[in-house]
Amino acid sequence: TAPGYAPSLRSRLPLVAFLLETIFILLFVFFVKIEQPEQIDREYDSKLFISSYAEFQDIHVMIFMGFGFLAIFLLRYGFSGSGFNVLLAAMAIQWAVLMNEIHISMKSMIEAELCAASALVAMGAVHGKTNPVQLLLMALVEVTGFVVNQWILFFSADPVYSIMLLHVFGALFGVMVSWVLYREGIEPVHEKEKTDRKTGLFAMFGTLFLWMFWPSFNSALVRDHKWERGLKLTVIYGTYLSLAVSVVMAMSVSMLTSAKGKMNMVYVQSSALSGGVAIGVAMTAVHTPWIAMTIGFCASLLSALGFRYMKNHMLFAFECHDTCSVLNVHAVPGILGWFALLFLRLASDESTIAVQFAVYHICVLLITACMSLVMGTATGPTTLIHIWRPQQDRKCFDDQAFWEVKGFVHLHHFKYVTTP
Amino acid sequence: TAPGYAPSLRSRLPLVAFLLETIFILLFVFFVKIEQPEQIDREYDSKLFISSYAEFQDIHVMIFMGFGFLAIFLLRYGFSGSGFNVLLAAMAIQWAVLMNEIHISMKSMIEAELCAASALVAMGAVHGKTNPVQLLLMALVEVTGFVVNQWILFFSADPVYSIMLLHVFGALFGVMVSWVLYREGIEPVHEKEKTDRKTGLFAMFGTLFLWMFWPSFNSALVRDHKWERGLKLTVIYGTYLSLAVSVVMAMSVSMLTSAKGKMNMVYVQSSALSGGVAIGVAMTAVHTPWIAMTIGFCASLLSALGFRYMKNHMLFAFECHDTCSVLNVHAVPGILGWFALLFLRLASDESTIAVQFAVYHICVLLITACMSLVMGTATGPTTLIHIWRPQQDRKCFDDQAFWEVKGFVHLHHFKYVTTP
Amino acid sequence: TAPGYAPSLRSRLPLVAFLLETIFILLFVFFVKIEQPEQIDREYDSKLFISSYAEFQDIHVMIFMGFGFLAIFLLRYGFSGSGFNVLLAAMAIQWAVLMNEIHISMKSMIEAELCAASALVAMGAVHGKTNPVQLLLMALVEVTGFVVNQWILFFSADPVYSIMLLHVFGALFGVMVSWVLYREGIEPVHEKEKTDRKTGLFAMFGTLFLWMFWPSFNSALVRDHKWERGLKLTVIYGTYLSLAVSVVMAMSVSMLTSAKGKMNMVYVQSSALSGGVAIGVAMTAVHTPWIAMTIGFCASLLSALGFRYMKNHMLFAFECHDTCSVLNVHAVPGILGWFALLFLRLASDESTIAVQFAVYHICVLLITACMSLVMGTATGPTTLIHIWRPQQDRKCFDDQAFWEVKGFVHLHHFKYVTTP
Repeated sequence: TAPGYAPSLRSRLPLVAFLLETIFILLFVFFVKIEQPEQIDREYDSKLFISSYAEFQDIHVMIFMGFGFLAIFLLRYGFSGSGFNVLLAAMAIQWAVLMNEIHISMKSMIEAELCAASALVAMGAVHGKTNPVQLLLMALVEVTGFVVNQWILFFSADPVYSIMLLHVFGALFGVMVSWVLYREGIEPVHEKEKTDRKTGLFAMFGTLFLWMFWPSFNSALVRDHKWERGLKLTVIYGTYLSLAVSVVMAMSVSMLTSAKGKMNMVYVQSSALSGGVAIGVAMTAVHTPWIAMTIGFCASLLSALGFRYMKNHMLFAFECHDTCSVLNVHAVPGILGWFALLFLRLASDESTIAVQFAVYHICVLLITACMSLVMGTATGPTTLIHIWRPQQDRKCFDDQAFWEVKGFVHLHHFKYVTTP
Repeated sequence: TAPGYAPSLRSRLPLVAFLLETIFILLFVFFVKIEQPEQIDREYDSKLFISSYAEFQDIHVMIFMGFGFLAIFLLRYGFSGSGFNVLLAAMAIQWAVLMNEIHISMKSMIEAELCAASALVAMGAVHGKTNPVQLLLMALVEVTGFVVNQWILFFSADPVYSIMLLHVFGALFGVMVSWVLYREGIEPVHEKEKTDRKTGLFAMFGTLFLWMFWPSFNSALVRDHKWERGLKLTVIYGTYLSLAVSVVMAMSVSMLTSAKGKMNMVYVQSSALSGGVAIGVAMTAVHTPWIAMTIGFCASLLSALGFRYMKNHMLFAFECHDTCSVLNVHAVPGILGWFALLFLRLASDESTIAVQFAVYHICVLLITACMSLVMGTATGPTTLIHIWRPQQDRKCFDDQAFWEVKGFVHLHHFKYVTTP
Repeated sequence: TAPGYAPSLRSRLPLVAFLLETIFILLFVFFVKIEQPEQIDREYDSKLFISSYAEFQDIHVMIFMGFGFLAIFLLRYGFSGSGFNVLLAAMAIQWAVLMNEIHISMKSMIEAELCAASALVAMGAVHGKTNPVQLLLMALVEVTGFVVNQWILFFSADPVYSIMLLHVFGALFGVMVSWVLYREGIEPVHEKEKTDRKTGLFAMFGTLFLWMFWPSFNSALVRDHKWERGLKLTVIYGTYLSLAVSVVMAMSVSMLTSAKGKMNMVYVQSSALSGGVAIGVAMTAVHTPWIAMTIGFCASLLSALGFRYMKNHMLFAFECHDTCSVLNVHAVPGILGWFALLFLRLASDESTIAVQFAVYHICVLLITACMSLVMGTATGPTTLIHIWRPQQDRKCFDDQAFWEVKGFVHLHHFKYVTTP
């Protein structure tokens, strides 16, 4: 191809996608069955179904609409931002179903969507600097790592750990991939890494759908125990209040840290969500509304400050460009939530149990972080290799590398017309 | 009116809409009652209500948000695309309630929305080339035809047939209307039949809402039988997986068939939905996930190829301009689904029963197709007649014919200001 | 600050928000607990939870997405329109929880969102002419007034009254604040009070989400009585049909009252919702679909005519500028609904009871209206005082006063780059 154009993926993406889909379908033939509800009491099942399906739909909207549109604040990257989000999520879900369970049920579908969520978090760090084939491979490796990490930690018993781990795992993984893929040639500020009024509003949609349905996201896999009635409701109320406080704080801090006293839409949107991340980790130990609100307060404060100061530091000190600043939105609030969890347990439980709990959870966090950092670093070179034809530096953050942007709806008409 | 302006509908649309609404309200006075749940067991009713209302809301979002925004990829047609969609759907639903049932219940409301869906599919073919009065008349005739077709086929017993038939009926109806309304004067490519970055993103919203809630759409009228527990869940999982595969394939084929290896957003959005259409027809015979995925694979392949090649062929060979290419999105995958249904039944059932089933269903498909083609052709001239003041050729695909686009929010201020 | 720039809120908004959040959290520590479902029958509770949570989510979407995007038809006010909506709603909800109940439950959360809705209605009248600190104070006073009004009227017993009163209270309150805040300096038409194709479509999103989920909004707090089974369902069907008629009428009247026969998107969007407002007041007395449709018909007619004629009259005769014309969208249909309620009761009940009912409800309406007018007028000067730094006249209806609009995503990069 001429040097003026991005390398065409025509011979790469369709082939990889065809192959993967064929393999997935073959694996489904042999390994995946639909859970038959015969053995379950009909009455119980019907009620459970209604509840799970509504929660599943909320999460479904978050994954495909929320994450997709949150990422399109970039001026010229809307088609890729939303399109690749759907592509990755659809593939990641199929792969996660294969890795997680051999029976399809509402629960396994929700778990698969959570795995996809962790891959989408990772994608946030490399957005705009990778092509869809690279993203696809990264997503599949990320999902594999995330599930294997849960196997290692023997977490299959309690699915709530998925929600606790996915933000930290996804964010650290993505940041490492982004670090390995760092492009020397890009100026500190790429000329296309811009936003405007309209893309800011599209991103607002994505943000709001994430923000509004986050209580369902956190509570979906929480089940009421005999010894702890109403845990699910407590998680819903806690997430709701934590998010309400964190959106107020996000605006305040964004204005306070700006020299001209003006809010930055991208910062506000991202920090507004940090309360949901933090409470998602600590939720099982939060029993009163004010603690939830305090966690939202702190998470948003940390996240909004990180946006103003840490992102640039990461770029200049470590040569790591984190497009959606997932480190501030997912990793930092996630780790804060972990500390809140330990602190709350230490304050409430008997000391021996609490210390055991703390040691165990610190280990879990460390193992997950290591796993994520190592796998991210290892994935970088794989996705970098030249056969995947990464776009040139100056085609970063630009839809034109992959999409027919603007122009007539049916380009082929022209061929008809002009070729006599 | 001066030749430079589109013919004003001021004396047409309000009159027609007032009249129709008055007639509808009068008919409602005499014929429509709300179903009183007295006779139903309260316990059962309450559960059923919760379930149906959530499903109803999902479908409601698809009809008013999904279809409306899917159609606004056209650069200058956003107000009309979304506005006329709401107008048509609201009228079609009232008419469908009158034709379908005399008691309003969740079930009758869902059925009315499905009738509206078939009218909206038909509208997709003539979008941008007809004025709202024409669209309104077309929609009412379409709904009448769709319901009468079900009466002829004695389908009132099993409402699942609505979903099986609506895509084929709507698409063929719309294509015939579009064929009759063909405007010689329009160049093969109208200068306003264009898309851009922002309208592409708006269309992405509509697409995603359709895509995400399609499992509810397909499963809403499926009831679990005694001999087939869990059919509703199977339909949900099947639709979900079929759509996941079809969105991946839509992107791949769109890139593969482009000379420059670039995806086309309009094609991707439409083909991504074809999996839902096809599985919606075959769903009662699909019991394993891999068959659902294979159906999604094939539907998307056919649909995406159709976009590149069939649409232009239709235009140049048959002088039929199909704005949203409903033939590729609804008719072709619908017929594919029908073949899948027959094939699966032939493969699984006892031969005598299977052959009976096949003959019966082929007849149903043929009768529906004939009915749809005939009624579409007959409706064309009715909506064409000059008293409805169709817009000029050069005002096609343009909001300015019907809407105050741009400008001050309260135009009348100016009158005050300038008239002393 | 230089005269060319809007007064910076850097020293105001963060301080006020920090303070308020701290106070709220402290009050939550002492006064708010989560309702423990121990005493409730588990079976019953589980079902109730599912139902309430789904309804709550619908309302949640209306408050944060619907109201937020409805208000961004203004060309340069999208960030503020959607951003301040979230800010206000999040604060108003926390305050409403504190004022309403000491136990958090689904019911108290829904009630808190309804209070927030009334504050957002009030905000509609002053949109674009006030800064976020002023809006915040106004919202908190409005919520206080709304709750106190309910205390005065002893309405804590039947929460349905919230929905009946919120539109009238919010709209009159907002209009009075707008009247007090009237800016002499603004020309009758501010040069930035404009709309365009894209902002009209964003507003369409907001409108549709409000329109689609309005049945949940009206029915959320309706409980089935022993003597009136199926009341909740009747309210849902009634709201649905009323809205269907009112959207058709909104388009018709908008076209009929335009000299050129062109519809105005802003008018259509707002009037389409008036059917939901009116039926929300009269709903407990509406038992047949055609009455609901007639109410929608009349509400939309009145509201659409009001848009063309009353808004300007308000501006020129009373010097009251009502940005979103909440008087036409909420107050007028609300009062119409009240009359419909009285009329329907007088027509159906025994005369003595009906007259008692009428006198009682006329008193309620008058007290609410007075309360709202007085508090709105009193709030105006408080929010006007100069320490809150209202933006200059020429910065009205403009995001640039408060937001970093356009430009590079991470402005601070530049500082690094240019400062050696």
